[in-house]
Amino acid sequence: MNRNQITEQIVLARLAKGLTWQQLADAIGRPVAWTTAALLGQHPVPAELSNVLVEMLGLDRSVVPVLAAPPMRGGLPTAVPTDPTIYRFYEALQVYGGAIKELIHEKFGDGIMSAINFSVDVQRQTHSSGDRVVVTFDGKFLPYQWVSAQS
Amino acid sequence: MNRNQITEQIVLARLAKGLTWQQLADAIGRPVAWTTAALLGQHPVPAELSNVLVEMLGLDRSVVPVLAAPPMRGGLPTAVPTDPTIYRFYEALQVYGGAIKELIHEKFGDGIMSAINFSVDVQRQTHSSGDRVVVTFDGKFLPYQWVSAQS
Amino acid sequence: MNRNQITEQIVLARLAKGLTWQQLADAIGRPVAWTTAALLGQHPVPAELSNVLVEMLGLDRSVVPVLAAPPMRGGLPTAVPTDPTIYRFYEALQVYGGAIKELIHEKFGDGIMSAINFSVDVQRQTHSSGDRVVVTFDGKFLPYQWVSAQS
Amino acid sequence: MNRNQITEQIVLARLAKGLTWQQLADAIGRPVAWTTAALLGQHPVPAELSNVLVEMLGLDRSVVPVLAAPPMRGGLPTAVPTDPTIYRFYEALQVYGGAIKELIHEKFGDGIMSAINFSVDVQRQTHSSGDRVVVTFDGKFLPYQWVSAQS
Amino acid sequence: MNRNQITEQIVLARLAKGLTWQQLADAIGRPVAWTTAALLGQHPVPAELSNVLVEMLGLDRSVVPVLAAPPMRGGLPTAVPTDPTIYRFYEALQVYGGAIKELIHEKFGDGIMSAINFSVDVQRQTHSSGDRVVVTFDGKFLPYQWVSAQS
Amino acid sequence: MNRNQITEQIVLARLAKGLTWQQLADAIGRPVAWTTAALLGQHPVPAELSNVLVEMLGLDRSVVPVLAAPPMRGGLPTAVPTDPTIYRFYEALQVYGGAIKELIHEKFGDGIMSAINFSVDVQRQTHSSGDRVVVTFDGKFLPYQWVSAQS
Amino acid sequence: MNRNQITEQIVLARLAKGLTWQQLADAIGRPVAWTTAALLGQHPVPAELSNVLVEMLGLDRSVVPVLAAPPMRGGLPTAVPTDPTIYRFYEALQVYGGAIKELIHEKFGDGIMSAINFSVDVQRQTHSSGDRVVVTFDGKFLPYQWVSAQS
Amino acid sequence: MNRNQITEQIVLARLAKGLTWQQLADAIGRPVAWTTAALLGQHPVPAELSNVLVEMLGLDRSVVPVLAAPPMRGGLPTAVPTDPTIYRFYEALQVYGGAIKELIHEKFGDGIMSAINFSVDVQRQTHSSGDRVVVTFDGKFLPYQWVSAQS
Amino acid sequence: MNRNQITEQIVLARLAKGLTWQQLADAIGRPVAWTTAALLGQHPVPAELSNVLVEMLGLDRSVVPVLAAPPMRGGLPTAVPTDPTIYRFYEALQVYGGAIKELIHEKFGDGIMSAINFSVDVQRQTHSSGDRVVVTFDGKFLPYQWVSAQS
Amino acid sequence: MNRNQITEQIVLARLAKGLTWQQLADAIGRPVAWTTAALLGQHPVPAELSNVLVEMLGLDRSVVPVLAAPPMRGGLPTAVPTDPTIYRFYEALQVYGGAIKELIHEKFGDGIMSAINFSVDVQRQTHSSGDRVVVTFDGKFLPYQWVSAQS
Repeated sequence: MNRNQITEQIVLARLAKGLTWQQLADAIGRPVAWTTAALLGQHPVPAELSNVLVEMLGLDRSVVPVLAAPPMRGGLPTAVPTDPTIYRFYEALQVYGGAIKELIHEKFGDGIMSAINFSVDVQRQTHSSGDRVVVTFDGKFLPYQWVSAQS
Repeated sequence: MNRNQITEQIVLARLAKGLTWQQLADAIGRPVAWTTAALLGQHPVPAELSNVLVEMLGLDRSVVPVLAAPPMRGGLPTAVPTDPTIYRFYEALQVYGGAIKELIHEKFGDGIMSAINFSVDVQRQTHSSGDRVVVTFDGKFLPYQWVSAQS
Repeated sequence: MNRNQITEQIVLARLAKGLTWQQLADAIGRPVAWTTAALLGQHPVPAELSNVLVEMLGLDRSVVPVLAAPPMRGGLPTAVPTDPTIYRFYEALQVYGGAIKELIHEKFGDGIMSAINFSVDVQRQTHSSGDRVVVTFDGKFLPYQWVSAQS
Repeated sequence: MNRNQITEQIVLARLAKGLTWQQLADAIGRPVAWTTAALLGQHPVPAELSNVLVEMLGLDRSVVPVLAAPPMRGGLPTAVPTDPTIYRFYEALQVYGGAIKELIHEKFGDGIMSAINFSVDVQRQTHSSGDRVVVTFDGKFLPYQWVSAQS
Repeated sequence: MNRNQITEQIVLARLAKGLTWQQLADAIGRPVAWTTAALLGQHPVPAELSNVLVEMLGLDRSVVPVLAAPPMRGGLPTAVPTDPTIYRFYEALQVYGGAIKELIHEKFGDGIMSAINFSVDVQRQTHSSGDRVVVTFDGKFLPYQWVSAQS
Repeated sequence: MNRNQITEQIVLARLAKGLTWQQLADAIGRPVAWTTAALLGQHPVPAELSNVLVEMLGLDRSVVPVLAAPPMRGGLPTAVPTDPTIYRFYEALQVYGGAIKELIHEKFGDGIMSAINFSVDVQRQTHSSGDRVVVTFDGKFLPYQWVSAQS
Repeated sequence: MNRNQITEQIVLARLAKGLTWQQLADAIGRPVAWTTAALLGQHPVPAELSNVLVEMLGLDRSVVPVLAAPPMRGGLPTAVPTDPTIYRFYEALQVYGGAIKELIHEKFGDGIMSAINFSVDVQRQTHSSGDRVVVTFDGKFLPYQWVSAQS
Repeated sequence: MNRNQITEQIVLARLAKGLTWQQLADAIGRPVAWTTAALLGQHPVPAELSNVLVEMLGLDRSVVPVLAAPPMRGGLPTAVPTDPTIYRFYEALQVYGGAIKELIHEKFGDGIMSAINFSVDVQRQTHSSGDRVVVTFDGKFLPYQWVSAQS
Repeated sequence: MNRNQITEQIVLARLAKGLTWQQLADAIGRPVAWTTAALLGQHPVPAELSNVLVEMLGLDRSVVPVLAAPPMRGGLPTAVPTDPTIYRFYEALQVYGGAIKELIHEKFGDGIMSAINFSVDVQRQTHSSGDRVVVTFDGKFLPYQWVSAQS
Repeated sequence: MNRNQITEQIVLARLAKGLTWQQLADAIGRPVAWTTAALLGQHPVPAELSNVLVEMLGLDRSVVPVLAAPPMRGGLPTAVPTDPTIYRFYEALQVYGGAIKELIHEKFGDGIMSAINFSVDVQRQTHSSGDRVVVTFDGKFLPYQWVSAQS
């Protein structure tokens, strides 16, 4: 079973067993956003953690070494996402991407927000005009630096 | 001059005059992320605000009604962005989009984060291992609701 | 069995049993357009409803929790639809999309028609020059509003 | 000046003169959705009507024969629209396109909604939970018929 | 078995049994172009006809209701066809599509050739410089008409 | 002026002068479909013919040698046409392309309809249920033949 | 088994049996380039020839009628080939395609090299600076000719 | 003037002056296929040669250093060519590309035909069944070799 | 089992057995980058080497002749890679590709770095500001040379 | 003048003045690969450096603030490069990208080579079988780390 097939098994087993992502994250003591992304095939899962998860989800133990390997990442089936819940983030990038770029440069200079030294957080916040989804992208600033191993 | 041509003029005039986006935002008393997005062609700019901005940037006053109209939005030149600063957000969507979707559903039920009743914020936060870019996507939760005008 | 495989089973079982979409909708007391979209994999189906449908269609009961989860939406196999019945709506968007945008802005100001707080209706209306397909897209107007959870 | 250049002039002149689409439509006695689509380059405008419009908008009279010719239609700059107001209709097609197809077939048999013998209407309807955008796609049903000129 | 799988079975069974498309069409008394398109998955086949065809081709009788349903049309595996026999028609569209459009407008006014009230015919015609493939596209002219169900 | 610019001038000049494609074709004694395609940039126009056309359309004589050269063909602005009048032919190819291929093979054996030794004809034919657009694609059959210059 | 599955079987059987394409071509007395293309799914293989090949490769005799039918041609998995050996020919087309077109027109007038009345040849030729791959594309010249079956 | 603009000027000047590619090639003593490709923007033209060509074509002398620089190559306006004369070579690649790859491997082992140490030749060859276009792609065989500068 | 299926088996067997790529390379005495690429389906593996690898990985011996054949190369599932580790090299090409081209031309003249007479090396180099990934692309310079087999 | 227009001016001015990239780099005391990339529009050029370059190249001084701003990066005109010199690096990514990913993970664990804390170097190295292009991609290793500003 390759990683994609394992991911599909996880998705179905979680629903069949009625487990929440939070319960799975709690069982291994990791942040829920990390745990969800990892179980959707986007991060390696260390063997000691996947042993716990495999047990909870009733999967075969042979998947553990595959889960432990860095996966081929990139979880969207199309370049432009069609699912509305995911698309809104793509839309926000179309509308605000240029402004985010300008403001990163204005506050930090030339460089980027790392997507590797990075965490993401999804919160529900109450608001008088309706509860809000607050998603935080939080990455280390990396300035463009011309460094070589020799120097 | 159409909106795209005005946007290009704004971009060049801002650099020539050495103005920051923050200065432009302060001059009109609006959030800097909104102001930057609007000046990059993604939001209408009410006439009373663009009168101020046109003055600061030395543009022709005839652009005011064009700036005041809702624009054709979507500011990325390619479906998958090539600029590294913007790409990292697309990459985060590839890697974490599925997890964000699952967690919105787990915390709110079926629905989406609005990208219309929405704000975005770019902050610099200090951290012992290097300052961080913290970008908050903050949108009202919209549950899937089957409503019709007749009901 | 994942959601796509369940959808395919539903499509074939409905034909084999000679059931109409209207009969399936009536059995669960939901609008027929909602029911059809949901059974084609575009909405979660609450367990109490899918228990009824699974019975009528002769499917395995294990599909119920999968049907109850928010699906990965987006049901067209290509970005531009090839089926003529669906394509005409895409064509209408190519020809009238710009005008619809302008008129929403003229009647409401800057904003969008929600596709989440939304219903769709398909009616047959008689007309002297031939019966007409009248499809109503009915969504709440959402004005562009710059709101944040903090405010 | 070709049709695209004329369309751009119309868009800018309308804003400069502060005219609504409704005013333009009233001046020529045609439905506002038709008028807007036509002025955005999607329909030929008969000479007697464009004479009026050219006057109101202050365009050169030489554009009249170009406006009167059937245009090369298709007004979206990308296959998948990026503007959020237009995108929601594409999204509705992704989510409900399959269901609309099924219901057209269930109510009419095999065939399509014409996008040629067709009108579109954009209405604002009040609703206790917020005003609604109601867009009606209204086309003649065309059954698949195998007809040849010889028969 | 879904429609695509049935189509593949039909294609292989026809070859294995050595039947021509003409023989299949004659057996059901329908035009050969219609019959071929339908058996390639592009039209519903009424049950009384598919009973005959299923018998001739040795297929399972359970395919009959699936064949009788309006299919998801669009039979080319890529947007631009790669098979040379089919590509030549796409090429003709690239080279002559603009001219065909102009001449339809010159002879009929603004409108289209219907592809629904439509038939296609493939003939072999002898010619002194080599026999010719003559393919006739024959569709009802549909003028652009702004009609609504209310009117 | 390159060929594309000349084509655009021809299109506008024809409208400004109120000439039909048939009048242009008659003036040079060539079939109207050929003439229209050629003037839309798809065929070289021999100098003796373009001298006549240039005169009628009031173009500069310097375009004659450019019109006389074999052009870079392919007149559709997108791989899948968006204009409805042209799209219907693409749709017919999606729905009937496979059947046309099968019937060419059944009537002629393995090979293609030439799009080079080829003519196209657009006719208006009256019919009791509405006049019909009859477009004939007429090309020499070319059998697959493995021939080499040496043999 | 459809043609694609048969092709895959042929590819694997040839390797397992250690047969060269030349040996397969010799066994049926056809040019090796034709034989290779045909066995890769690009040409029909007459039954008398495929009987021999099926025997040599140890395939099931039921594949013979499928091999004998004109296939859906087009053997590259992506529009732009990724395999370097094949890509070089695409690159040559990018770099020299325009020149080849000009020289065909200069030597023959307006028209094309047929890819149907056509053969291809791959030779190894020795050269002092290293042996060379010489691939000859050899097709009948087809002049653009406006011919119709009626004429 | 950049290289693309110079190429366009060359194309038009050649037609205006009635020069053949062969005449241009003879004037500089280079093969005609090389000369044509170079003048179409695909090769640098050494200054001593472009001095001659610039004179013949009546171009400004300032283009000489731009012509002498290695250009950004790749002359086709779309990934899949639409011009029929060029498309046939793409089609040959779709149909015979796999076979050419196999035969290069069978005759040479693993490797490629170079498109850099390469020439192309276009010949007209007479044949009883019609003259033939014979295009030779002639490149040095490059075996896959794992070499590093250190070794 | 075709090459893709064998590659997938190798990937999973390596993880299940806990073997490093280095161990596999050492076992056959080949560079680790070559070995990894070859086992990922990008190079033929000579039978004497794959006999060793098949043993270590516990695969069926029947895969040996398939591994020994030149594969259809090109290992990325999308034209633009989505995996962040691979994407960074694509990004470097977007940002530095033009500069690399200019510097190759400045140091060598017109030509390319061969990707066939080529090796790649991945090293870990320590650095005071954090260890570095140093990837060397090392290919023979190939000057553009117009050579033909006849000369 | 926007950044793209400035880049084009730089490219032409360098050729007209006969300056090498190395001379430009030396004049500002920066590495030649950085200088070339920056002048091709991929990096901001600090004002003190662009003052020197603008002088050497004879550009207008008003370009200095535009050169000093972080540009919209991404210099390839198509997603897959068509220029052979650049394409070889894309090809190397297709063939060796998977192996590079595996070896980065084997030597460093899960993470990436930074393309921001990064330098690239192009060297000519002599070799008995022909001089070699050695291009070094040298980036800091960034391990996947789940860090948030709060922690």
